[in-house]
Amino acid sequence: MSDLSSSSPAAEPLTVMGAGLVGSLLSLYLAQRGHPVRLFERRPDPRRTGQLEGRSINLALSDRGWRALEGVGVADAIRQVGIPMYGRTMHDVHGQLTYQPYGQAGQAIYSVNRGHLNRTLLDLAEAHSQVQVSFGQQCLHLDLKGQQLQLLDTASGREHTESYTRLFGTDGAFSAVRGAMQKTDRYDYSQHYLEYGYKELTIEAGPGGSWLLEQNSLHIWPRGQFMMIALPNLDGSFNCTLFFPFEGPVSFAALQTPAQVQEFFNREFADALPLMPHLTKEFFEHPTGSLVTIRCFPWKYDDDVLLLGDASHAIVPFYGQGMNAGFEDCTVLNQLLDQHGDTDWPTIFSEFQAQRKPNADAMADLAVYNFVEMRDRVADPRFLLQKKIEAKISSLYPGRWKPLYAQVTFSHTPYAEAWAAGQRQDAIMARLMPHIQTEADFDTPEVQERVRQEMEQVAGA
Amino acid sequence: MSDLSSSSPAAEPLTVMGAGLVGSLLSLYLAQRGHPVRLFERRPDPRRTGQLEGRSINLALSDRGWRALEGVGVADAIRQVGIPMYGRTMHDVHGQLTYQPYGQAGQAIYSVNRGHLNRTLLDLAEAHSQVQVSFGQQCLHLDLKGQQLQLLDTASGREHTESYTRLFGTDGAFSAVRGAMQKTDRYDYSQHYLEYGYKELTIEAGPGGSWLLEQNSLHIWPRGQFMMIALPNLDGSFNCTLFFPFEGPVSFAALQTPAQVQEFFNREFADALPLMPHLTKEFFEHPTGSLVTIRCFPWKYDDDVLLLGDASHAIVPFYGQGMNAGFEDCTVLNQLLDQHGDTDWPTIFSEFQAQRKPNADAMADLAVYNFVEMRDRVADPRFLLQKKIEAKISSLYPGRWKPLYAQVTFSHTPYAEAWAAGQRQDAIMARLMPHIQTEADFDTPEVQERVRQEMEQVAGA
Repeated sequence: MSDLSSSSPAAEPLTVMGAGLVGSLLSLYLAQRGHPVRLFERRPDPRRTGQLEGRSINLALSDRGWRALEGVGVADAIRQVGIPMYGRTMHDVHGQLTYQPYGQAGQAIYSVNRGHLNRTLLDLAEAHSQVQVSFGQQCLHLDLKGQQLQLLDTASGREHTESYTRLFGTDGAFSAVRGAMQKTDRYDYSQHYLEYGYKELTIEAGPGGSWLLEQNSLHIWPRGQFMMIALPNLDGSFNCTLFFPFEGPVSFAALQTPAQVQEFFNREFADALPLMPHLTKEFFEHPTGSLVTIRCFPWKYDDDVLLLGDASHAIVPFYGQGMNAGFEDCTVLNQLLDQHGDTDWPTIFSEFQAQRKPNADAMADLAVYNFVEMRDRVADPRFLLQKKIEAKISSLYPGRWKPLYAQVTFSHTPYAEAWAAGQRQDAIMARLMPHIQTEADFDTPEVQERVRQEMEQVAGA
Repeated sequence: MSDLSSSSPAAEPLTVMGAGLVGSLLSLYLAQRGHPVRLFERRPDPRRTGQLEGRSINLALSDRGWRALEGVGVADAIRQVGIPMYGRTMHDVHGQLTYQPYGQAGQAIYSVNRGHLNRTLLDLAEAHSQVQVSFGQQCLHLDLKGQQLQLLDTASGREHTESYTRLFGTDGAFSAVRGAMQKTDRYDYSQHYLEYGYKELTIEAGPGGSWLLEQNSLHIWPRGQFMMIALPNLDGSFNCTLFFPFEGPVSFAALQTPAQVQEFFNREFADALPLMPHLTKEFFEHPTGSLVTIRCFPWKYDDDVLLLGDASHAIVPFYGQGMNAGFEDCTVLNQLLDQHGDTDWPTIFSEFQAQRKPNADAMADLAVYNFVEMRDRVADPRFLLQKKIEAKISSLYPGRWKPLYAQVTFSHTPYAEAWAAGQRQDAIMARLMPHIQTEADFDTPEVQERVRQEMEQVAGA
């Protein structure tokens, strides 16, 4: 046991393993409640090295993330360097554009630079007198029964052992903390990969740092079995991501030469290609990322260890909710601390996992669902018509029909509730759409009557 | 690379990690084809220590297992020490018995002692001039790229490194070989535990080694949310297994004292209790086992490593197919070697996993399905009536309706096909049974006509 642990509960230090986005935000929350926090991170300080291994450059911050950032008073500062995206702009193979708003007027998701956000949170954490951050601390072994972390100081090569009374595992999808828990009896765990990989590419800025595509949009090139997306950066460039099968006739495996890549982009993304002068260099130099969904349970070990963020629920990126879900973990934990007090960790850990696990599972499903929507369905005029009809129904029945995207993105409705409502709505639309060929059809008495009947079955929200 | 690997393909040694049931049988198959085999086992030689950690004492051998044993000429010897079980005997709370045959006259599954079977296979493997068996060899590390196994000789404490060109991982549900593969990119893996544990108990032999229950039956005490089963041993005793929730009002957690156990067995298994004189001692001394389903993919690494048996598809024990499925892996691998020759390992490994993975997934589902059937449905008179009606349909349409249990147990139909047919049959019975209240109803013109119509939809087998 640590010699610090014998002091009063309020002064008992909490240990956080992993100083990524969730770990640094969590440390701030805990410190602001008066807890001393020791924050360990495997990698060197990213503010010195600038390296962020294998992670996307842009993130889409939405309401759940903002609320969590507001809780530590940093939302306004981040908003200054975020770019609002009010909707999706779809690019077809001929360069024709279609636009679909994400929500109501003024509602947006924000393109934010991951590195900037992480550095800002680390600066805040380190500036807090209660937080002690140590970088380059690799977890070699976690003794769950003995409550000890065996860490390697990567700079000096020295190993050291740290005792803990409460350990928070925020060390990401390949969490060492979870790794130790996985070896305990009756631990449910799954890692499932999509057959798609991703490649990060760049659309260059125009003259004087201008944006060569609409900057307040998330751009999608939906192509059925694959897609490219682009998110705006402050410097006028866009960060593009190609989501593409690993194997098959149209796949990473099939694009082996610069000429093949050039030809493929010319055929599929002809309007973007002239804006990507470094395409082939980037294509072959950047790694091909893989896309994993990780589920596990329990998220706690006894009353000593709790997993948060990607460590317990890594998801694919297609709903832009990975970070937002991890940040919401911090909000929920903070609420539970408000509710049960800062010493009743057994109750807090139990309630946390009971409350969050179904929502994390729903979000994992939603993320895969949105991949199909983005790469395939948004290119279908019938789907876009359906979305317009849904918006009309939502206006007519504002309390009873909240669009799924808005519930996930612009609300704090638990993900599991949003997902259940979304599935009910999909079933309703499957019954209505055969009777609707144009937007105007919505106003016919027949369709109005069908909508009225359907909505009678839907409970008020 | 091993210095042996540069010799001719036929003399190239094959490495098998894990000398359990599947590993020792596989080694025999490979050796009989002329391959030198090095077989490593983590545990000490079970023929010397007698220890078999955490595994059930009895196994139910059925047709798939027998076929695999016949392939190495050992089936007849094993059958001499197996006890045929021709059906299930259900015991209700009042001690009333119901009987349900497993198949047609003469068809049986065989209660076989795991230790005896493993020792027999090890004796045969060791007697084969091409097989070299090493016990007490713990896999510390597997270097997949370098094709090297780092082993610890547990007797001497010395570490040694073994190169391989082909490695077969038959090291069970917690496979070290699979453990290394899990860390490679895009490796799909899941471990899922039932909320039930199991406890092994004993019904003692009667005077002179007689059986105190019908010896040619598998006995079930189905109790809805839990059950006990018993399989006969040669010495007149029965090996009982209680499958029971870990937590809850009726659970392992709720039975904390000998008096509570005695009272519980007296209430639920009153006819068995007098036959279990060591019940409370066994209950508290024997470990409580957990029940895991493990799925993963791929089963191969490049063309060098292949997983078989529980290492790639551990399942829960309720269909008695875990060992049979692992033995069938050996049969299928042997067939692929016949088909493609003994050197085309890339094709053989690819075809093996493509062919076996869907069948292993189906068997995992079937095993959970049969748990519900055994602990709950077999106690329902309507279910038993349904099984009788199904037998009648099967007699009327022998090519088109093969009972699911028989397809799994008494045939070599791929598990996935059997499972699909079983689901179709369940759907048909759900439509028919509302029209059938007694066995005699089957012969009414109305029911006969319904059956005829249903069977028109079923393709001939």
